[in-house]
Amino acid sequence: MGTISGSLLNRRTIRKYSERDVEEKMLDYLLLQGSRTSTTGNMQVYSIVITRDMEIKKELAPCHFNQSMVTEAPVVLTFCADFNRFNKWCRLRKADPGYDNFLSFMTAATDALLAAQTVCIAAESEGLGICYLGTTIYMTRDIIKILRLPAGVVPVTTVTLGWPAENPEQVDRLPLKAITHKETYKDYTDKDIEELYSQKENRSDSELFIRENNKETLAQVFTDVRYTRKDNVHFSETLLQVLEEQGFMNQ
Amino acid sequence: MGTISGSLLNRRTIRKYSERDVEEKMLDYLLLQGSRTSTTGNMQVYSIVITRDMEIKKELAPCHFNQSMVTEAPVVLTFCADFNRFNKWCRLRKADPGYDNFLSFMTAATDALLAAQTVCIAAESEGLGICYLGTTIYMTRDIIKILRLPAGVVPVTTVTLGWPAENPEQVDRLPLKAITHKETYKDYTDKDIEELYSQKENRSDSELFIRENNKETLAQVFTDVRYTRKDNVHFSETLLQVLEEQGFMNQ
Repeated sequence: MGTISGSLLNRRTIRKYSERDVEEKMLDYLLLQGSRTSTTGNMQVYSIVITRDMEIKKELAPCHFNQSMVTEAPVVLTFCADFNRFNKWCRLRKADPGYDNFLSFMTAATDALLAAQTVCIAAESEGLGICYLGTTIYMTRDIIKILRLPAGVVPVTTVTLGWPAENPEQVDRLPLKAITHKETYKDYTDKDIEELYSQKENRSDSELFIRENNKETLAQVFTDVRYTRKDNVHFSETLLQVLEEQGFMNQ
Repeated sequence: MGTISGSLLNRRTIRKYSERDVEEKMLDYLLLQGSRTSTTGNMQVYSIVITRDMEIKKELAPCHFNQSMVTEAPVVLTFCADFNRFNKWCRLRKADPGYDNFLSFMTAATDALLAAQTVCIAAESEGLGICYLGTTIYMTRDIIKILRLPAGVVPVTTVTLGWPAENPEQVDRLPLKAITHKETYKDYTDKDIEELYSQKENRSDSELFIRENNKETLAQVFTDVRYTRKDNVHFSETLLQVLEEQGFMNQ
């Protein structure tokens, strides 16, 4: 088995970073690796905004619910679906770009997300630590303003990057059979669900999590506290509006 | 610099595969690495459908415009945004899942895409070859039917996997400065675009591509032949309908 592979099994998300900077040369090397990631038709319809400036990181922090990583990590990478550059090239070359629609947003978001994961794996292979911020798609409108993203550009994920100052325990995952299906999808019976989630539910940290949140089950911590219907509906509306504002909903 | 990293710079997409099978044990090892990928709130809201059966691959082939990789690769992996499993768990645990909206689709699609890229990098580090099929998001409705995906599940990308039977030249990429922005987004002037795309436009294969397609510029090959407005609008409508059909557009 290869050497890369082993490290992928042992990874953990890093939320505390040392004072040590991520050198420009190192960052370029990580991003260059990211740029070799597969992209739809080799269009490379994504951009990466590299934020190191503390003032801008402070502006971004509330978009990420003031999670400490945003200001404490030396580097914040915002990965964006980006048809703006490609559209400009088309117009300069007597070509009419038809990329102001939802499919094009998904194409560009896919390019951005796959490249993000390559950059993260490249970073971790150098001993750096990363943390993804899922808050990006909640707060696209504010991020667009702060990072001055033009039409055709929408942020889809953010990664904080730095040298680790912690070595947390690895979090649990569902058994592999929970997330894979052979040949076609086999829907889950109640018995399947009981079995697949039993390990997760029986962990001592899960029990703590339930108590801390004053809930009856671990699932309720997700539905009632962490990812509520009310928030999801609100952020869905905003995200769809932003897709329209940024020119991705013309049919 | 680490050993993983170097290989990420030298990768190429592989479209021709040898007869050699991808052993179950190897595939499990790759997928296990994929399962360690960051996921929103550790919800793991994605699934991977592993198709090896030739009959099912033949059914899938037209969804991917009959690209030869689908039937010729020993393994076809369909990565799906999947809230079905999580919703079932919630309902079994007296929790009301509010994940039938667009934000939840994007959350789940992100989980699926990041995991896909980890599996691909793990595969390439073992000497295997991969090819992404961007056609997946065009043809979600047919794929849903063939792979029997229930509500809450939408395919977002497909990867063909096998041992390489070709060693193609590496494709070109834009210079790194084309896809990166320091601190905030700096929009492109015409002069920027000229400079950033000059290398791509001056390649001999680009000229061949223009001639073959009977076009005036390389950009026109994209807008008029490969990714047309008409197709994009059609596939956008279908994809939005499918998100509704699969229960991701309730507000």
